[in-house]
Amino acid sequence: MKYLHTMVRVSDLDASLKFYVDALGLVEHSRRDVEAGRFTLVFLHAPGDEGAQVELTYNWDESGYDSGRNFGHLAYHVDDIYALCQHMINQGITINRPPRDGRMAFVKSPDGISIELLQKGEALPLQEPWISMPNEGTW
Amino acid sequence: MKYLHTMVRVSDLDASLKFYVDALGLVEHSRRDVEAGRFTLVFLHAPGDEGAQVELTYNWDESGYDSGRNFGHLAYHVDDIYALCQHMINQGITINRPPRDGRMAFVKSPDGISIELLQKGEALPLQEPWISMPNEGTW
Repeated sequence: MKYLHTMVRVSDLDASLKFYVDALGLVEHSRRDVEAGRFTLVFLHAPGDEGAQVELTYNWDESGYDSGRNFGHLAYHVDDIYALCQHMINQGITINRPPRDGRMAFVKSPDGISIELLQKGEALPLQEPWISMPNEGTW
Repeated sequence: MKYLHTMVRVSDLDASLKFYVDALGLVEHSRRDVEAGRFTLVFLHAPGDEGAQVELTYNWDESGYDSGRNFGHLAYHVDDIYALCQHMINQGITINRPPRDGRMAFVKSPDGISIELLQKGEALPLQEPWISMPNEGTW
């Protein structure tokens, strides 16, 4: 038995790839357009970790997906949480829970999927602008 | 960068472990009771695949989590989809989408988290009772 992926539905495929690929740094593994079903599947994974994927389901005629409380978040180890959060800010992403502790941050996809970022290994030394950055919204 | 886990919230920890461990076959990796925050975290994974986990968050004073459409499902490769589905039925689980095609099934956790089971390798030869088993509910 083996974990394959977590599937999430996305309202806007371009906006979602900007978030998951350009900002978060996942890479595209494969993509399938199913004309008959009017949907597109895109499989993503962290670089070098293709055994655990995220499947984006983009239904061409559906959007505006709501969030539920039963699903919490996806979590990733990252090499440098400050560098990644700064890169995401530069890409226009809100850091809902900034890494004030040098260890943990939360961001959200365009469809409200919460993503936890955890610094690999020891927490980084505390530093600005992170120490003073307040929470924004929920995650 | 590396995928760590998908977190889901559970209303009833015992019922959830019956589903995820006794029925689905995941194994418990670790558990943490946080008295101060009044919650328990349980980390599970497929046998032999501890790099990709499911984190169950059990808040002691909260239950009745709703589902949203932005989250789709968790997916696992399984060695024998018929044997696993029969085992789950024996454990009292409804197979929402039976493996009529010898390849794919869907079940749901007590909190409505959808789980996709995919036969590893080639689809199994079609056989009863699966061929005639109707869908039940949503997944």
